[in-house]
Amino acid sequence: MSAELISGRELAAELREGTAARAARLAEAGRPPRLAVVWATDDGAAAWYVRSIAKAADKAGVGCELVELGASASADAVQARLAESGGDPSVHGVILQTPLPDGAEPDELAAVIPPDKDVDGANPLSLGRLAAGLPAFAPATAAAVLALLDHHGVALAGRHAVVVGRSTVVGKPAAHLLLDRDATVTVAHSRTADLAAVTRTAEVLVVAAGRPGLITPDHVRPGAVVVDVGTNPTPDGGLVGDVAPEAAERAGALTPVPGGVGPVTTALLLRHTVIAAER
Amino acid sequence: MSAELISGRELAAELREGTAARAARLAEAGRPPRLAVVWATDDGAAAWYVRSIAKAADKAGVGCELVELGASASADAVQARLAESGGDPSVHGVILQTPLPDGAEPDELAAVIPPDKDVDGANPLSLGRLAAGLPAFAPATAAAVLALLDHHGVALAGRHAVVVGRSTVVGKPAAHLLLDRDATVTVAHSRTADLAAVTRTAEVLVVAAGRPGLITPDHVRPGAVVVDVGTNPTPDGGLVGDVAPEAAERAGALTPVPGGVGPVTTALLLRHTVIAAER
Repeated sequence: MSAELISGRELAAELREGTAARAARLAEAGRPPRLAVVWATDDGAAAWYVRSIAKAADKAGVGCELVELGASASADAVQARLAESGGDPSVHGVILQTPLPDGAEPDELAAVIPPDKDVDGANPLSLGRLAAGLPAFAPATAAAVLALLDHHGVALAGRHAVVVGRSTVVGKPAAHLLLDRDATVTVAHSRTADLAAVTRTAEVLVVAAGRPGLITPDHVRPGAVVVDVGTNPTPDGGLVGDVAPEAAERAGALTPVPGGVGPVTTALLLRHTVIAAER
Repeated sequence: MSAELISGRELAAELREGTAARAARLAEAGRPPRLAVVWATDDGAAAWYVRSIAKAADKAGVGCELVELGASASADAVQARLAESGGDPSVHGVILQTPLPDGAEPDELAAVIPPDKDVDGANPLSLGRLAAGLPAFAPATAAAVLALLDHHGVALAGRHAVVVGRSTVVGKPAAHLLLDRDATVTVAHSRTADLAAVTRTAEVLVVAAGRPGLITPDHVRPGAVVVDVGTNPTPDGGLVGDVAPEAAERAGALTPVPGGVGPVTTALLLRHTVIAAER
C-alpha cells in the first residue's frame, strides 16, 4: 500500500487564480500590487527561486522588483535597501532572499521590514505576533504547510503533530500555526535523541530539516500524514525532499518534492502581497 | 520514595544578593535602577503580587513606581501610561500587570513597551526575538523555569521536555527557551488528547496550566523532573500548584508551590531591571 499523494499544484493554481483576480481589481483601482525582492548572493538555487517568484508574480499581475545587490554587498547596504523598499508607498510586500553575505544575520536585517509589508514573515516582530496569536504574515513556507493540510481536510485539533527542524523560517512558525489550530506539537531537531521514536508518535509529521532521506519508513507511524518541506538539490539538477521515497509505503498521505509545498509557498507569497495591497 | 524538592528560595536569595550589589553600584554612579509597574485592576491576587514586587525591589535597592490606574481605566489610557514610562529616561524596566480591563489585549498594549525596557518580555517583539534566538528579555516566569533547572544541574540537551500550557507569558516562551537549550520540546494544552500519555514521555515536565491538581501520579514518568508553575489560590488564602501532592511519589524532583518558581520569578524581574539599567 502506498501513501496518497498530497499535490500542491492544484491548490497553487487555485490560489493563483484568486490572487490574479484580486490583483486585477487593485490595478483597476489605480493601486497595482507590487513586491520587492532584495537579494545579495551568487547562490544558484537562490537565483532560480527569485526568478520563479518573478515569473509567478508576472502571471498573477503582481509587479515584482528584483533588487540584486551582489554577494559583496554589506549588511548595512542590504538593510538600507530593505528600509527603502519598506518606505516606498508603491511597494506592498518586501522579501529578503537568503543566503546573505557573511556576517549578516537575516533576523536582524529583516527587523526593518514594516510588519504590514512583511509578506514572508521574516521580521522577528511578525514571528512574535504569530506566537502571541495576533494578526501577522507567517513565513510563506510555514503557511503553505497549513494550507496543504487544510486543503486535504486533515484534522489537527487534539492530534499530535511533530515538526522536525527548528528554523525561524519554517519549523518554529509552523509549530505555532499548528498549536494555534489546537494540535499537540513537538519540535524535534538535530540534537533529538532517537528521532525515529519521536516521529513515530506523529499523526501529522512536518519535516523541514534540509537533509535528504532523513525520514525512513522506520520514522513514520503507519497512516500518518507527512508534509515534506525539504528541497535538496541533486547532482543531476533535480530536487529531493527530506523524506525517503520508501517512507511512502507507511504514510497515509505524503506531499511530493517537487510539486508539494514549493508551488503553494510561491502562491502564498503573492497572495500575501495582494492582501497587503488591499489594506 | 519521594521526589527531591527543588526549592526556589535559595536561588532567589542568591539572585537578590547579586542584584542588590549591582543596584548599589548603579546608584553610586548616579543611575539608580527603577522599575515601573502599570496596573488597572481590582483583582486581589494582582494587588498582592504587585505589593510583593515593590517590597522585593525596595530590599534590592531598585526603585519601584506603582502606577495604579484603577479597573475602570480604558485600554488607551493604559497604553498611554506604558508609553510614558517607556519614554522616561529614569525608568529602566516597565511591567504591565494583568488582568486588564475588559476588551484590553495585553499583547497589543505591551507592544509600546520599548524592548530594552521590556523586563517581563510582554512585547510580542520580545517573544519574536526570543523565538528567533536573538537577545531579548524572556518573561520572568519562563526565565525562572530555566534558572531553576540550571541551578539544580538538570541536563536539557537531547532530552524530552513537555510543557503543559500554551500561554504567551509562560508556556510558549518556556518552550522556546528549552528548544534553545537543545531539548526536544512538546507543547500540550487543554485540547490535547490523552494528556497523561503525552506527559508520561517527559524527562522534564513543566506545568503552567492554572488548574490545581491537573497532574496526578499517572501523568508523571518515574524519575522525571517536574516544574510546577501553577499558583492557584485556595479558599483558606493559601496557594497550590497544578501538580497534585501525590505526584511527588513518582517524580525524581519537583518544585514546591509556594517557594519554587514564584520567588525566582520576582528575583529575575529585578535582575532584568538592573541589566537594563546597566546598558
